[in-house]
Amino acid sequence: MSGGIRPIGVGMLGYAFMGKAHANGYKKLSYMAWPPPLMPRLVSIAGRNEEAVSAAAVRYGFERHVTDWHELVTDPEVELFDNSGPNNLHAEPTIAAAEAGKHVICEKPLGRNAGESYDVWQRVAATGVKHMTAFNYRFVPAVRLARQLIEAGELGEIYHFRGRYLQEWGPTTEEVWRFDKKLAGSGALGDLAAHVVDLARYLVGEIASVSGTTHTFMPGREVDDAVESVAEFEGGAVGTIEATRFATGRKNAFSWEINGSKGSLAFDLERLNELEHSEGTKGFRRILVSEADHPFWQWWWPHGHIIGWEHTFVHELHHLLDAIAGNGEVAPHGATLEDGYRAAEVCDAILRSAESGRREHITYR
Amino acid sequence: MSGGIRPIGVGMLGYAFMGKAHANGYKKLSYMAWPPPLMPRLVSIAGRNEEAVSAAAVRYGFERHVTDWHELVTDPEVELFDNSGPNNLHAEPTIAAAEAGKHVICEKPLGRNAGESYDVWQRVAATGVKHMTAFNYRFVPAVRLARQLIEAGELGEIYHFRGRYLQEWGPTTEEVWRFDKKLAGSGALGDLAAHVVDLARYLVGEIASVSGTTHTFMPGREVDDAVESVAEFEGGAVGTIEATRFATGRKNAFSWEINGSKGSLAFDLERLNELEHSEGTKGFRRILVSEADHPFWQWWWPHGHIIGWEHTFVHELHHLLDAIAGNGEVAPHGATLEDGYRAAEVCDAILRSAESGRREHITYR
Amino acid sequence: MSGGIRPIGVGMLGYAFMGKAHANGYKKLSYMAWPPPLMPRLVSIAGRNEEAVSAAAVRYGFERHVTDWHELVTDPEVELFDNSGPNNLHAEPTIAAAEAGKHVICEKPLGRNAGESYDVWQRVAATGVKHMTAFNYRFVPAVRLARQLIEAGELGEIYHFRGRYLQEWGPTTEEVWRFDKKLAGSGALGDLAAHVVDLARYLVGEIASVSGTTHTFMPGREVDDAVESVAEFEGGAVGTIEATRFATGRKNAFSWEINGSKGSLAFDLERLNELEHSEGTKGFRRILVSEADHPFWQWWWPHGHIIGWEHTFVHELHHLLDAIAGNGEVAPHGATLEDGYRAAEVCDAILRSAESGRREHITYR
Amino acid sequence: MSGGIRPIGVGMLGYAFMGKAHANGYKKLSYMAWPPPLMPRLVSIAGRNEEAVSAAAVRYGFERHVTDWHELVTDPEVELFDNSGPNNLHAEPTIAAAEAGKHVICEKPLGRNAGESYDVWQRVAATGVKHMTAFNYRFVPAVRLARQLIEAGELGEIYHFRGRYLQEWGPTTEEVWRFDKKLAGSGALGDLAAHVVDLARYLVGEIASVSGTTHTFMPGREVDDAVESVAEFEGGAVGTIEATRFATGRKNAFSWEINGSKGSLAFDLERLNELEHSEGTKGFRRILVSEADHPFWQWWWPHGHIIGWEHTFVHELHHLLDAIAGNGEVAPHGATLEDGYRAAEVCDAILRSAESGRREHITYR
Repeated sequence: MSGGIRPIGVGMLGYAFMGKAHANGYKKLSYMAWPPPLMPRLVSIAGRNEEAVSAAAVRYGFERHVTDWHELVTDPEVELFDNSGPNNLHAEPTIAAAEAGKHVICEKPLGRNAGESYDVWQRVAATGVKHMTAFNYRFVPAVRLARQLIEAGELGEIYHFRGRYLQEWGPTTEEVWRFDKKLAGSGALGDLAAHVVDLARYLVGEIASVSGTTHTFMPGREVDDAVESVAEFEGGAVGTIEATRFATGRKNAFSWEINGSKGSLAFDLERLNELEHSEGTKGFRRILVSEADHPFWQWWWPHGHIIGWEHTFVHELHHLLDAIAGNGEVAPHGATLEDGYRAAEVCDAILRSAESGRREHITYR
Repeated sequence: MSGGIRPIGVGMLGYAFMGKAHANGYKKLSYMAWPPPLMPRLVSIAGRNEEAVSAAAVRYGFERHVTDWHELVTDPEVELFDNSGPNNLHAEPTIAAAEAGKHVICEKPLGRNAGESYDVWQRVAATGVKHMTAFNYRFVPAVRLARQLIEAGELGEIYHFRGRYLQEWGPTTEEVWRFDKKLAGSGALGDLAAHVVDLARYLVGEIASVSGTTHTFMPGREVDDAVESVAEFEGGAVGTIEATRFATGRKNAFSWEINGSKGSLAFDLERLNELEHSEGTKGFRRILVSEADHPFWQWWWPHGHIIGWEHTFVHELHHLLDAIAGNGEVAPHGATLEDGYRAAEVCDAILRSAESGRREHITYR
Repeated sequence: MSGGIRPIGVGMLGYAFMGKAHANGYKKLSYMAWPPPLMPRLVSIAGRNEEAVSAAAVRYGFERHVTDWHELVTDPEVELFDNSGPNNLHAEPTIAAAEAGKHVICEKPLGRNAGESYDVWQRVAATGVKHMTAFNYRFVPAVRLARQLIEAGELGEIYHFRGRYLQEWGPTTEEVWRFDKKLAGSGALGDLAAHVVDLARYLVGEIASVSGTTHTFMPGREVDDAVESVAEFEGGAVGTIEATRFATGRKNAFSWEINGSKGSLAFDLERLNELEHSEGTKGFRRILVSEADHPFWQWWWPHGHIIGWEHTFVHELHHLLDAIAGNGEVAPHGATLEDGYRAAEVCDAILRSAESGRREHITYR
Repeated sequence: MSGGIRPIGVGMLGYAFMGKAHANGYKKLSYMAWPPPLMPRLVSIAGRNEEAVSAAAVRYGFERHVTDWHELVTDPEVELFDNSGPNNLHAEPTIAAAEAGKHVICEKPLGRNAGESYDVWQRVAATGVKHMTAFNYRFVPAVRLARQLIEAGELGEIYHFRGRYLQEWGPTTEEVWRFDKKLAGSGALGDLAAHVVDLARYLVGEIASVSGTTHTFMPGREVDDAVESVAEFEGGAVGTIEATRFATGRKNAFSWEINGSKGSLAFDLERLNELEHSEGTKGFRRILVSEADHPFWQWWWPHGHIIGWEHTFVHELHHLLDAIAGNGEVAPHGATLEDGYRAAEVCDAILRSAESGRREHITYR
């Protein structure tokens, strides 16, 4: 059954946007990233609204549902705890699951601030389980290809990183947990800028200092709507990190550009199958990242038959299962909880700079 | 179980490229296009190579596999026969399945020529089952949106359709069934130009005449490598229909443009999430087709979180299940076997024109 | 004075769109393409409307104006006759000027049909003067670069040429000479498709046959509004040649693509400073054609400081002056009157095909 | 002669890149922006290298040349002093010319720092002559159109401005005056970032504070190679201002984006004929800024026949002549010397922030 592949029991917290994306990831990798290192078995899903969580269980094929996440932690059939819940439910359940011996993956941002993130990382790391922060954009084929090109020296010395994550839904007057400071910790910062920071670290390296500002356009809103910052990297590159929910006309435009002495790369998440590469000063070539030898592509289709946003989760969860199965480590291509913490430290420094009006240096605890 | 949704037994012929795409479609619609009108139950898969087909059955979760497609036809648990096999296996199995009372979907081109396609259609239609030709590009959200805009009169009178399907793998020296005239019927014509013809008919209407040429670049190859033709539509529009496997640098570039008196639309399959629309002469706006009210989008993600090529099959198979469940008909948004036949008639006319050097009028039998 | 550069007296017929473009060309090359091979001296300009032509003379700096073009022909100070008049005034004045010993440049299309074009070419060629048909798009830097790449073998064997010239102003109800068959000869065919044919010949080579259609959308209009055709080249390439004045949203979109065994090129006149080049199957690189070693760029600006449509005339007229000064020939980079005739022969064949419904072979007289 | 248009004598300092651009501007506007408000008469050109300046005089048609700029100031036939010299020659000659009663236009940056710029402005303004800082990008048709759309309220409340000016030639080891701090004042800051600051002010309004950094990649170079900064606007918008000479593959990529509550605009100087406009959240429409009713277009060609970088100077110098002729003022569409000073004040604040590590508030003297 299932080709004799060893199963792994998954317990998931959350059934909304991220829960749907993760559930789809497990189901899809089971036959597309074939053969999977472990065969996900959707054991249990937790959510407070029984009607909604039971419907989600039926829809996604979880064997059971619970309304208290502690039951996932004590469930002996759950071997991997997948935290797709809101930010205020990241720390405690993730720590509890790890301390119960379960591998953990937690959505980003890891905590509502650097301190909380640090605690999660430390507590989880002490248990020895495999752990991952779900920075799924590391698993866009074009992003992995960018990393490969940079590691191979194709860009030479890196001069610049410019990253911006632009969305447009900020002017909504709907009540969503993402605007509630207690639940979310921050606004565009933890939601969007954290992704920019993570890819900056993944592609260019550690950030030495930041200076910038945050801004809330919507009267009465507790969290930031936009983040603007300048970053200096330890390796000598300089650039910008920006994020906003107030970029009318931009749906999900996480774009970045890296300039090096030997070439440049450019990317836009709205066209995530493409990587633009200027070899030297020759001009930008549009690579449709879908060749047989491109990252992750062995699982998919003939070249030119593009994939979607959701596939980043297939790649990410496959990577995690590989690590759990003993095929390599989560790092460096997956973000560990340490990476989750480090991103939070940079985000907190931007907040500090916004308040202090000063360039803030990043120091890790 | 499965939320109490009525199951439908699926028997599939073929496990290669198209088989993988269809299998993924059934699995995915079961939880993403929720609730599905019928719950696909993957009963049996057929293929001549037992090792390969049994592996495919395990991978995709079919309950059993067979090496003779006739067993699908006689299998009482198969209610829907999915023909994802090569072109030479389209006619006989599809007819046999329909005559055994099973609904059928058949990959394109329906037959290896118009005559064979006509027979399939006539024989299947006589049985009263639901039937579909798998012209999946009708199920790209941007294509459906284009159809909606045209139907709403947003383009006014249609002047032009220009469609071209460009791929680059033609120079290969590998032996593939697509180069074998007995198996494939034709080359770029049935494989690629048929898609162009189908969307031309779906978006603009019936074609009155064609004139053109086919060309084989590779010495010794039996089938056409490229098709170039001029088309005149019954409604008065004129344009071109082109397809080639020799467009170096183009991976899967099925692009079309439609010009009307009130506006124009443009599309490229390599960026299938986008539709370009010029309202009047105002210039082309890039619509990222991912808003909540865009076609098919209720099943997916927040806007800007793009989908991939494979999702066209999710939409297509869902549409078929809807028709089987009694929620509307396959036509006009799905291609019936009649549409499969009609596309073949246009393709044959291009072939005739290539040989005769004359403009050939389309007449349907 | 003028740096001691030998002057050449220019007499121009026409002061409208093309007259403005040519006048600007002469004035600009005098100091930008420095030092010019000959220094243009704007001697005389001819037009029937005295008020308008005298105003044009003042505006552009012609020493005098005349209302009868014969006076240009008999003017001893006119050494170069520039025919920027409407199509019906191409043949007789151009022949007369050449027979009076003046070098000639004539706007395209050379004649209103192939027969008239042939006569102009033959009569002018017999005189021994330098002659040019003003196919200015040969003088776009990106087009010249394309030619260089093709000549250097960078594209390998050429498989395809697809050229389309799309404009949108056709629905106008204004009376313009371009809609009058006696004055213009044809519509989109001679105006736009002729450019496509000329670049097809310049970049890919002679055309062996065409089949296609023309169409007039506007009731009562004498000339064609659109041209759709398939072309087969002597060298084995196949493709399409299209032109229309009914492509709503397209302002001046002369785009072409060439696919070869080693790579592909793509171009769009609305972005005339760019050439897209796929080296092999690597994907299209956007070359901003403005490097110091790019064609014509020694006269202009630092790279990236783009030029405009009008600059094609600067390059073209400079090329003609070079030939007159004895620095090389008009051919192959400039279009001679023979090239003007040959383009007309292809255009006439498209017309014949439109009427006969047959593939028409091109034979030159 | 010259249509009876009143002449204005021009004396120009400098004959290199900017001298060529300005000379071309005067010559071209004389017949293209017809009828010009005043007819430029190229009286005298100054440069230290006699051979070079005399050649330039012949080439561009100046009546005489001088090797000492003071002679331009004392030349009674010079009515307009055009300072196209290097930055260290901006202040003294411009002041001297104005105090001699000549109108002045000075290349940017106005001075080598805010103090010098302030002095020039004050001294010149006191004389009552017309004055302009040559921020030519205000005269790109797409930029003027952007301003019109913003003024008409089409963008609503402005949330963001993101501007970056990217070039790639920084790694050169050539000695150019732009790397000499005494001559240039600064590097990418005054050369490129000053343009970004000027358009930010022109389109969005005054900047309240900046924080950022400058960086020099090339060992031993005196001036900055790159500038990265966050800007807060008085009106409440926040964003970034960046400039670099180390963006390999970017030739002249001055791009900016503005997001407002009702829509967004985006622009890239490498495609200067285009403006992208999202009306609300509808997605970005590519406007080819070349319609008859678009800014400056009445002087040029049928729509779609694009113009080049050099044309910004035609528009700019025409605007200045209009002001001198009494047809309106230099401000607000032209940059006055006050605008030149204000841009310098912002640039200086970025420098201060780079050194202090603090957010610096802009105060004008």
